[in-house]
Amino acid sequence: MNEPLFVIPLWADLTAVGLGGVQGALFASGFRGERRLDLLGVAIIGVVVGMGGGLIRDLLLNVTPTTLQSNWYLLTATGAALVGMLLANLFRRLNAFIVGLDALVIGLFGAFGTSKALALGLPLVPAVFVGVCSAVGGGILRDMIMGLPVAIMHVGSLYAVAAAVGCFVLASLEAFGSELVLAAVVGVVVTTILRLLAVIFDISLPEQRALYRNKVAVETTTIPIVRP
Amino acid sequence: MNEPLFVIPLWADLTAVGLGGVQGALFASGFRGERRLDLLGVAIIGVVVGMGGGLIRDLLLNVTPTTLQSNWYLLTATGAALVGMLLANLFRRLNAFIVGLDALVIGLFGAFGTSKALALGLPLVPAVFVGVCSAVGGGILRDMIMGLPVAIMHVGSLYAVAAAVGCFVLASLEAFGSELVLAAVVGVVVTTILRLLAVIFDISLPEQRALYRNKVAVETTTIPIVRP
Amino acid sequence: MNEPLFVIPLWADLTAVGLGGVQGALFASGFRGERRLDLLGVAIIGVVVGMGGGLIRDLLLNVTPTTLQSNWYLLTATGAALVGMLLANLFRRLNAFIVGLDALVIGLFGAFGTSKALALGLPLVPAVFVGVCSAVGGGILRDMIMGLPVAIMHVGSLYAVAAAVGCFVLASLEAFGSELVLAAVVGVVVTTILRLLAVIFDISLPEQRALYRNKVAVETTTIPIVRP
Repeated sequence: MNEPLFVIPLWADLTAVGLGGVQGALFASGFRGERRLDLLGVAIIGVVVGMGGGLIRDLLLNVTPTTLQSNWYLLTATGAALVGMLLANLFRRLNAFIVGLDALVIGLFGAFGTSKALALGLPLVPAVFVGVCSAVGGGILRDMIMGLPVAIMHVGSLYAVAAAVGCFVLASLEAFGSELVLAAVVGVVVTTILRLLAVIFDISLPEQRALYRNKVAVETTTIPIVRP
Repeated sequence: MNEPLFVIPLWADLTAVGLGGVQGALFASGFRGERRLDLLGVAIIGVVVGMGGGLIRDLLLNVTPTTLQSNWYLLTATGAALVGMLLANLFRRLNAFIVGLDALVIGLFGAFGTSKALALGLPLVPAVFVGVCSAVGGGILRDMIMGLPVAIMHVGSLYAVAAAVGCFVLASLEAFGSELVLAAVVGVVVTTILRLLAVIFDISLPEQRALYRNKVAVETTTIPIVRP
Repeated sequence: MNEPLFVIPLWADLTAVGLGGVQGALFASGFRGERRLDLLGVAIIGVVVGMGGGLIRDLLLNVTPTTLQSNWYLLTATGAALVGMLLANLFRRLNAFIVGLDALVIGLFGAFGTSKALALGLPLVPAVFVGVCSAVGGGILRDMIMGLPVAIMHVGSLYAVAAAVGCFVLASLEAFGSELVLAAVVGVVVTTILRLLAVIFDISLPEQRALYRNKVAVETTTIPIVRP
């Protein structure tokens, strides 16, 4: 019996997949690398961002990927990628709208991942881990396939942390007896708001620093920035 | 019961693995990057290209990888990689032969992937998706491990599309009641021919383009090509 | 029944995860790329190196990842990564200590991978393959996520080969009727010693070379080394 007892409503899952697909295509459309992506490349990135999180979640949980159980996931992700590609310029003018959508998508994927992990009996810490991997996995795959530095690895706004806090709140509420659906909604809200606050106030994590060279670290960190 | 009801004949599977191993080693032997690959590196790439497609297929389908159920897969892939490496120059003179083999390999992996997915009960669209991932997955893994831009992401010949059309024909025939083996053979033929035609006539997909800037797009797309 | 009959003792598994986490964080702390890693980035790399090998092993074996069955794995990997990050400079002075630990970690992950694969009924060759993937998988994931050339692909010390020999010795002993635990201990020792010898004597594999151009190959291989 590999089938999950817990089922995310199809409409909710497809909404996340569609928003991810649009977001991926917008990102890929704006890409000006050594070689431009062709139509197929943009569509692939849309599918990767829209479906990657769910696939990674189900691989980690060792269940048959939900996204491959129905025709709708791929059709939604591909359709969303095409829409994102065609309307790229229109969407870009609505930048705040995109950032908001993106924050919501992380929240949704994170909550789905943690909920499914908890429903399959995983302990709290791995359940939060699975949620974070679902939330940021699509973006990591996107960057690796496009040959870009993986965004969440570098000094920037609190992307993965926002997902982790939301997933942790979800799992904690569930541990204290809350209904899973309610906990999931709270988790989505927490992640989305944290992510938006991080963008708005441009908050980032401190750089890593060793105990034994606190003074030197301040100087060495400036070198990479001033390099020719 | 995770075991598939559908079994690809071992000789057919090993043929695809061996051809993939040769092709991977040829590719890796020709690589002149920042640092050359050592013997082991070339062998690894051969194994990745020969076995990657089947591994990705079985991960997506959540079944125990067939390629790890018998000693023959790894021995075939490794042996093929060694042959490819030793005979690299000979094979390169027969370039048309290599391109033809490669087209056949995509066709075989695509057909195996889609057939297995259909046999496990997946709907048409995800079955085609699994086939395409099997067909192009080895090449994507190869490029990611070698630190190269992922080939199918960029303007080029219709690699993934050829695989998708062949897999779609296979799945459609099966949906209309055709025998799976017959449908698979047709799928292999369609993919192989499409891929060869794309190479011969140098057909490629149009670059992605936004609705709102059709005129500008023509100009901007030339910039990356003329960059210093 | 996907559950393994064979259980690696939790203390042994956590030791490998912890050592991997420290090693990953040390590596990531020393990274001076285009953009420095932030605290989270270093922690992620620690978790990837500490847990990646086990995750890859369980994905290949199609069993539910052991590392997600308990809170301890993630807590250990994260804690170890933080320790590694804070004490980066102290540890770096003890370079021989680090190299020794790393050799031990490869040995442990390789032995766990091969043992588990054999216990699940895999034949010898794939069992060795799973062991090697467990041993080097964390490092490959680390390099791919950090956007570095994958270390084991290039001319260097016999990293993957040391793992392969140890895993092969383990599997051979088991095939000849030895107790699995004893075989695993021998495998760990063999891999660790081989890896240390390779580092100490700076042994590397010959570069790949085609039969049909032995003379030319000697010249062309020097070009990448003398590049400006």
